[in-house]
Amino acid sequence: MQRTVFFISDGTAITTETLGHSLLTQFPDVRFRQVRIPFVSDKAAGQSAVERINEAAEKDGAPPLVFNSIVNTELSDLLSTSQGYILDFFSAFLGPMAEALGVEPRREAGRAHGVTDVQRYEDRMEATNYALSHDDGVSLTYDNADLILVGVSRSGKTPTCLYMALHFGVKAANYPLTESDLESQRLPTFLRAHKQKVVGLMIDGDRLAQIRETRRPGSRYSSLKQCHWEVESAESLLRAEGVPVFYTTHSSIEEIASLVLMQLGLQREMF
Amino acid sequence: MQRTVFFISDGTAITTETLGHSLLTQFPDVRFRQVRIPFVSDKAAGQSAVERINEAAEKDGAPPLVFNSIVNTELSDLLSTSQGYILDFFSAFLGPMAEALGVEPRREAGRAHGVTDVQRYEDRMEATNYALSHDDGVSLTYDNADLILVGVSRSGKTPTCLYMALHFGVKAANYPLTESDLESQRLPTFLRAHKQKVVGLMIDGDRLAQIRETRRPGSRYSSLKQCHWEVESAESLLRAEGVPVFYTTHSSIEEIASLVLMQLGLQREMF
Repeated sequence: MQRTVFFISDGTAITTETLGHSLLTQFPDVRFRQVRIPFVSDKAAGQSAVERINEAAEKDGAPPLVFNSIVNTELSDLLSTSQGYILDFFSAFLGPMAEALGVEPRREAGRAHGVTDVQRYEDRMEATNYALSHDDGVSLTYDNADLILVGVSRSGKTPTCLYMALHFGVKAANYPLTESDLESQRLPTFLRAHKQKVVGLMIDGDRLAQIRETRRPGSRYSSLKQCHWEVESAESLLRAEGVPVFYTTHSSIEEIASLVLMQLGLQREMF
Repeated sequence: MQRTVFFISDGTAITTETLGHSLLTQFPDVRFRQVRIPFVSDKAAGQSAVERINEAAEKDGAPPLVFNSIVNTELSDLLSTSQGYILDFFSAFLGPMAEALGVEPRREAGRAHGVTDVQRYEDRMEATNYALSHDDGVSLTYDNADLILVGVSRSGKTPTCLYMALHFGVKAANYPLTESDLESQRLPTFLRAHKQKVVGLMIDGDRLAQIRETRRPGSRYSSLKQCHWEVESAESLLRAEGVPVFYTTHSSIEEIASLVLMQLGLQREMF
């Protein structure tokens, strides 16, 4: 069974797609063909979206699901004339929210992922630059870091830091534990000074070898023996130092990010 | 007026917060205090969430908004016993979707941002590594690139590439136009070979000077004269080469990413 799903918005359609994806994962047995239509902000774009929905309806022999988050009510009504099954994001929630708040919604398009708060947007760009300039031990000055992820090479530190910087505006540095750190079973001095900001990432040794093998096939670096030694040494080092540790083998960067921020009590708003 | 808003989930709460933010932006006159409570997956965590909601209700003198996307119905019912105004993400949409699809939802927690599809997750990590190793002209080999962003230094290329890699699994490279490129008014040879994948980012000269000034105060690099010259030269170069151009001055990286993918016809699913 295949069904087409549309994510339609007068903005980027990113919220719509995030929302839609989350709901679609609850129907793992259905094969979905997913189509994003962003920036539907005039009648021509709306009409073209209606046509694409109707074409999909004919092709599938079943009404497509249409996740709609167009704020403009006229354009939103236009979509309702299609053969799609409309799931309207704003009408589901704005009414109840207005009631709870006693305030009418603004009904302006593109507010979710536009630059509505310049300072917050700049903080986020600054955090991203910070993560890049403090990636992989490039800079070892951590005074301005909100947190420092440590772990062996390829344990997931870099993408997790970038994700936290881009989405939470968190200045996330990362440092790869070296063989000499592992042998000495001590955090280096420049990290001890910031120990309350240090979090460890751990990964299964077999999985680590697999990941490293795709990068440097047949090397000592990617050998099972080396990987297991590094992982075990890192675990005992971090335990001895009292550094909290999270396991990345079966977790996504979103899950790790969420856990790390909770652990450090960094209650930042998401972008 | 201040109102507390909770984002509560048995997963990362990232979808919940994305959804909630998008809706909150429609009420720009209300000051919201936002609290994320992820991983509410047992009764103790549910009870603790209820207590936090009730405390906020007393403090604010008004019911907090509670964006709830707990899949487990028992825990979800537990939240409903709080003094919060519950906006239930799943119950709003899963019912209608089940009806449209003729299939019952799985009702499993944490599917949205867990590693449900290992291959897609790995593609995404690979794309992130690609973006890093092809950032800022570090590597000029673009055979495997899905797209190449070009523009003057500090026009927003790097964060946009990282965003596209992390969220769309797109291998996004970027290349900073050099003075010599600008003077010759030609794309360098290694880019001409991939011209169908090249997209330009443009920025306002005054804004560029402002951004550069925070990085290298008082330098030629950040002078108004230099910035205006670079921006104007880049624009004429890109126009002459027939490269599509997007303006980043008032746009967020999400907006740019969405526009660029649409321009190149890269219909990738979001992560």
